[in-house]
Amino acid sequence: MSTLYAGYQDQIYRSGTAGRRPPFTTDHSRLERAARDVMAPQAYGYIAGAAGSEATMRANRAAFDHHGLVPRVLRDVSERDLSIELFGSRLPTPLLLAPVGALGLAHPDGEIAAARAAEETGVPLVLSTVSSHSIEEVAAAAPRARRWFQLYWPNDTELTLSLLERAVANRYEVLVVTLDAFALAWRPRDLDRGYLPFHRLHGLANYLTDPAFRHLLPKPAETDPAGAVQRWSELFNDASRTWASIPFLREHWHGPLVLKGICHPGDARAAVDSGADAIVVSNHGGRQIDGGVAALDALEAVVAAVGDRTTVLFDSGIRTGADTVKALALGARAVLLGRPYVYGLALGGTKGVIHVLRGLLAELDLTLAMTGHRTPAALDPSVLVRT
Amino acid sequence: MSTLYAGYQDQIYRSGTAGRRPPFTTDHSRLERAARDVMAPQAYGYIAGAAGSEATMRANRAAFDHHGLVPRVLRDVSERDLSIELFGSRLPTPLLLAPVGALGLAHPDGEIAAARAAEETGVPLVLSTVSSHSIEEVAAAAPRARRWFQLYWPNDTELTLSLLERAVANRYEVLVVTLDAFALAWRPRDLDRGYLPFHRLHGLANYLTDPAFRHLLPKPAETDPAGAVQRWSELFNDASRTWASIPFLREHWHGPLVLKGICHPGDARAAVDSGADAIVVSNHGGRQIDGGVAALDALEAVVAAVGDRTTVLFDSGIRTGADTVKALALGARAVLLGRPYVYGLALGGTKGVIHVLRGLLAELDLTLAMTGHRTPAALDPSVLVRT
Amino acid sequence: MSTLYAGYQDQIYRSGTAGRRPPFTTDHSRLERAARDVMAPQAYGYIAGAAGSEATMRANRAAFDHHGLVPRVLRDVSERDLSIELFGSRLPTPLLLAPVGALGLAHPDGEIAAARAAEETGVPLVLSTVSSHSIEEVAAAAPRARRWFQLYWPNDTELTLSLLERAVANRYEVLVVTLDAFALAWRPRDLDRGYLPFHRLHGLANYLTDPAFRHLLPKPAETDPAGAVQRWSELFNDASRTWASIPFLREHWHGPLVLKGICHPGDARAAVDSGADAIVVSNHGGRQIDGGVAALDALEAVVAAVGDRTTVLFDSGIRTGADTVKALALGARAVLLGRPYVYGLALGGTKGVIHVLRGLLAELDLTLAMTGHRTPAALDPSVLVRT
Amino acid sequence: MSTLYAGYQDQIYRSGTAGRRPPFTTDHSRLERAARDVMAPQAYGYIAGAAGSEATMRANRAAFDHHGLVPRVLRDVSERDLSIELFGSRLPTPLLLAPVGALGLAHPDGEIAAARAAEETGVPLVLSTVSSHSIEEVAAAAPRARRWFQLYWPNDTELTLSLLERAVANRYEVLVVTLDAFALAWRPRDLDRGYLPFHRLHGLANYLTDPAFRHLLPKPAETDPAGAVQRWSELFNDASRTWASIPFLREHWHGPLVLKGICHPGDARAAVDSGADAIVVSNHGGRQIDGGVAALDALEAVVAAVGDRTTVLFDSGIRTGADTVKALALGARAVLLGRPYVYGLALGGTKGVIHVLRGLLAELDLTLAMTGHRTPAALDPSVLVRT
Repeated sequence: MSTLYAGYQDQIYRSGTAGRRPPFTTDHSRLERAARDVMAPQAYGYIAGAAGSEATMRANRAAFDHHGLVPRVLRDVSERDLSIELFGSRLPTPLLLAPVGALGLAHPDGEIAAARAAEETGVPLVLSTVSSHSIEEVAAAAPRARRWFQLYWPNDTELTLSLLERAVANRYEVLVVTLDAFALAWRPRDLDRGYLPFHRLHGLANYLTDPAFRHLLPKPAETDPAGAVQRWSELFNDASRTWASIPFLREHWHGPLVLKGICHPGDARAAVDSGADAIVVSNHGGRQIDGGVAALDALEAVVAAVGDRTTVLFDSGIRTGADTVKALALGARAVLLGRPYVYGLALGGTKGVIHVLRGLLAELDLTLAMTGHRTPAALDPSVLVRT
Repeated sequence: MSTLYAGYQDQIYRSGTAGRRPPFTTDHSRLERAARDVMAPQAYGYIAGAAGSEATMRANRAAFDHHGLVPRVLRDVSERDLSIELFGSRLPTPLLLAPVGALGLAHPDGEIAAARAAEETGVPLVLSTVSSHSIEEVAAAAPRARRWFQLYWPNDTELTLSLLERAVANRYEVLVVTLDAFALAWRPRDLDRGYLPFHRLHGLANYLTDPAFRHLLPKPAETDPAGAVQRWSELFNDASRTWASIPFLREHWHGPLVLKGICHPGDARAAVDSGADAIVVSNHGGRQIDGGVAALDALEAVVAAVGDRTTVLFDSGIRTGADTVKALALGARAVLLGRPYVYGLALGGTKGVIHVLRGLLAELDLTLAMTGHRTPAALDPSVLVRT
Repeated sequence: MSTLYAGYQDQIYRSGTAGRRPPFTTDHSRLERAARDVMAPQAYGYIAGAAGSEATMRANRAAFDHHGLVPRVLRDVSERDLSIELFGSRLPTPLLLAPVGALGLAHPDGEIAAARAAEETGVPLVLSTVSSHSIEEVAAAAPRARRWFQLYWPNDTELTLSLLERAVANRYEVLVVTLDAFALAWRPRDLDRGYLPFHRLHGLANYLTDPAFRHLLPKPAETDPAGAVQRWSELFNDASRTWASIPFLREHWHGPLVLKGICHPGDARAAVDSGADAIVVSNHGGRQIDGGVAALDALEAVVAAVGDRTTVLFDSGIRTGADTVKALALGARAVLLGRPYVYGLALGGTKGVIHVLRGLLAELDLTLAMTGHRTPAALDPSVLVRT
Repeated sequence: MSTLYAGYQDQIYRSGTAGRRPPFTTDHSRLERAARDVMAPQAYGYIAGAAGSEATMRANRAAFDHHGLVPRVLRDVSERDLSIELFGSRLPTPLLLAPVGALGLAHPDGEIAAARAAEETGVPLVLSTVSSHSIEEVAAAAPRARRWFQLYWPNDTELTLSLLERAVANRYEVLVVTLDAFALAWRPRDLDRGYLPFHRLHGLANYLTDPAFRHLLPKPAETDPAGAVQRWSELFNDASRTWASIPFLREHWHGPLVLKGICHPGDARAAVDSGADAIVVSNHGGRQIDGGVAALDALEAVVAAVGDRTTVLFDSGIRTGADTVKALALGARAVLLGRPYVYGLALGGTKGVIHVLRGLLAELDLTLAMTGHRTPAALDPSVLVRT
């Protein structure tokens, strides 16, 4: 078992005996409140908020309460191994750092701090296209981190190819294409502040450093930042794409290709047929559509449709180790963690992210053990009762 | 796509970059609280309140949470068209401004401001019989607004005919007859204040300007306002009407005839048989009966009964674009928006109403897109999962 | 239609126009809070509290939310008649004042004030055995009130017969025997204050004036009140009674005999077999058992078992006219109102009780009308949808 | 009927008449708040807290609300007998004091005070392995108390045998082996304080007085307490044990053997096959796993699997007499009470525990009577309706 997470609770208790409290809270609700207290209001609102009345975000959380884990005893779970097989290699845990845009909002070191936490823990970082630090900076700062690249697929072929080439050149292993964000969502917390980070030049590092993007600007971004933002917003995405667009990516990306933002069994089937290596069942953490189905409920439907034909990943609502076990039991191979690690980042940079990861993984490890399992792969729906 | 609503979120973000926040909040709950802060308490209580313990109003809202929207991806929704066909012509969006009485309570310009917003947006205004400005004033102030007329069917034939004639003369296209308000409801917020706007001469513009009404007064309203109110309350409605009464309206109104306030499949069938062109499934926003069925649940039952034989409209509980998509998916052709636009009116007159409409329509447009649809007509129940 | 309740809302609005607010609130939640503010804490705790964690009381209320009323339109409900047939005669409404002990806690006039409200409204008062004013005082103070007598069946034959004789002699028409209170319940609000009204000589008027009771005292109550309370508590009830005990009452009471506190279909059948004329489905307002089934849910089961063989009355949870319609629709012939009228009593004596009754009846009348009915007898379960 | 609990409510009311309030509150929620106010924050956090987001603890409580008790009347329940048969002898009530570690956190007298309450009431105390007072001290202080011994099965044979021998020598009748706590759980209330009582030498009385344990220490605990804690934590438990481990205990413990912490029907079957005399359905009060199934729901599944083949006990969520009746009705022979008695202990030592027990038993006795039963054995699921 990894010393990263195994016994983290014991380590905290021992430090406590010596008079030291853990550096950050171990409870996800208090973590969110603590982060709110240190973050700029607009930054916190951007991270914590969701679409419309935020009903989807609430539904994401509530869905976990409808599945109860059943403990097991006397099954020899003294040795656990959280590692999983993914795309022919092993990951140390079934956890990834979800792509979150503009991490510079949370901490000056942004994605660099997150990548260093990834390096420390072996948890891959899925770098967002709209990051505060570029593909190259992140790779240079954390060369041993496992890195995936998330693509907001630009409405320009040269720019698209340039981003993919940079990702390859900097050893980003997997491409995650986000499909559910082809338009700016209706997010009242941000709208009421007239605040979108990208319009303030946050999160545009990959564009501003890209020759293909700079080539598309009428004037240099340095002298005309508003023009650059304008051009960026035109290029950001393309709502006209269809399943017929996927072969282009398949052709130009030779590593594993993951399609993110699938909630409907029909879309899951189309994703499999398109040649994608995996899908991420996700509703973008409730950030795109209000009144939407809970992602965990969508997971069940998607796994029923394609669970035996592809690899299913999951995000949207994961806060704890118990949440993670539930998603894995319902058929996800791994889960992507979003807001909680950003709160850790806000509170303590790399250290804060590591703390959040260690805590979640420790609780995951314990939950696995207490439900009688030694590995994530051993989980199946029989560990749950619907409530 | 209309520039009215398409990209309204983007416009707000851009203005924000230039230091301007949106004129009003973009969140429906905050909108209600903001309106409460600027309205006279009795006016706010009249608008925001409902019957009895307000259980019906709460049920109206809760029903939306039992249907989750399922996002779709890669379906080419770059070009959307929110317009719908209704009564042989097209409306730019599936939205109407519901008839709300005495809008002068919310803003001095009352229905005139609302009508100007209707003119600006193409969203029809259903003018209430009990309006603060008369049929003629509203038509004159917003001649290009699409206007419907809502009838509280008076207990007097001459007065009834006079109102219909005025509506026709001023080019109100559609007649909406409200059937579920034949008695003053039990509304504690108002009762505890001893407050009914009409007893203070609010909302009586159409009566006081009507020769048939004035003819029925023992003394001129100017010299005996209390007598006018008394006469009004006697004439206001008639609880003895039956389905046999509808042919009279059918005979005297030559445009589309809509019956509003239907929740029971049997009544829906009767409405179709009566020759009405459409029905509005509505429980009057929970204002008439306490402990009532949620309007959205009634919609499903009514559509199952008559959805293929008539046009079904919907109100009671709509606050957001996502709500609207759900009602359309369950079989409504269009929805009527009530309280939210009144709050916009209270906060900013015509501008406030336009802001609320643009916001709701922008979110509706996005929700349509993110569920994989280009038009309202493309929606059906398969976009929803019951939760 | 009775001028008592018909148009009470209109009367309040008219008074409001003249600058007068209603004497008391028209909302049941605010009524409870207002009463709490004027009552002695221990008195309020006794009335408002319930058994244990008060889960049964909450369940009683929540059950009403699981049934939604479906409005109907155009059915000519201009003339309503709330009267019902009961035991061969007519009651003006399907409402009774439930037996509540020690009303002197709420107001000095206690049961006398309640009886005067009964006289004024035609709503029968079910006088509790443990009343603050005696059978005779109540009858004398309100000779035209319809009066029923509720029996806590003493553990002494002479005392029992004496109470019955006094009830007959003072023209109490119906005997209601409470079966579910054969022991002092576990009521934390009272226990934490060490407060039971009867131990402070409240509510013992019928005993202290009864020759049979006084005969059982070792010393006169005037000189040994503690001894009288002690004797009372020994005589109060008898947990050993069985269905075989009922014929004794049947033999000695020649008017209608009602058994109160039935929640189980088997007990309902036994009650019918015992020769009772009616039963009251009730869990004593949640005051006897914690974690109990909601009375409204029990009503459905009981009506299914014996609804065609006897008359079913209902209490426990009724707060509004809409609640009343639901209970009637599920098979109750009439309902007993408890806490709300006591709050009215606390706030305004007879006037307060009348206000509460008029309000509830006005809302009942409106709800009947808006669901398309002219009489209580016309209601059946089809007016409800389960939610 | 025992004078311990029968009529406790009556006794409180009588004392109240004489001006005395009960020594402690009679409501479980207020009891918890009162204890919080007198306990050290870390001690209260340790007792009141649970694993992770505490969802399991909430689910434990909520499950009781899904079963409603149905009252019965006229069944002669004047004489009740709460005693039950267990392991061939009788217990006076179906209640036990659950093993809770380190009761010295709540009161200086800790387990001694609890044992004296057990002696006074006849309710057995299940002494925790990790107690603040030793097996011998507790036996000596309360020689007439019925005592069971709970085993956290050490990872050392000599120590295990020594603990069992001490339990036998001191007449602990039953051995309860806790199976669901083979690892330190993730408990944010404790973690955030870096607080585990055992790391502060709380709750180690049985180890520090054990020759086999002292033999395993490199230095005497008196001179190297940190070393003793370290050794303790290594020896505390063993996650590698399987069902094949149970025969060892069966061989070395000749009294009744109870396996605690069973939630899965498969584990219940294995427990029966292992030769255990009884099982405790329990999720450790929600303290081990977050997001877990409610223990009461697990009880139903376990009873369905093995209810006719073994004796089933229950804990996790019991707060009141009504809760107890529900668990008994669903198939538990007896229940273990946890947190509430610790709160009583914190508030008033032995007296506080007795008060809590008398209150719960009085309410249990009343609930039994009001549901028409004279003995716990008479309960079956028909007393409940699912809600």
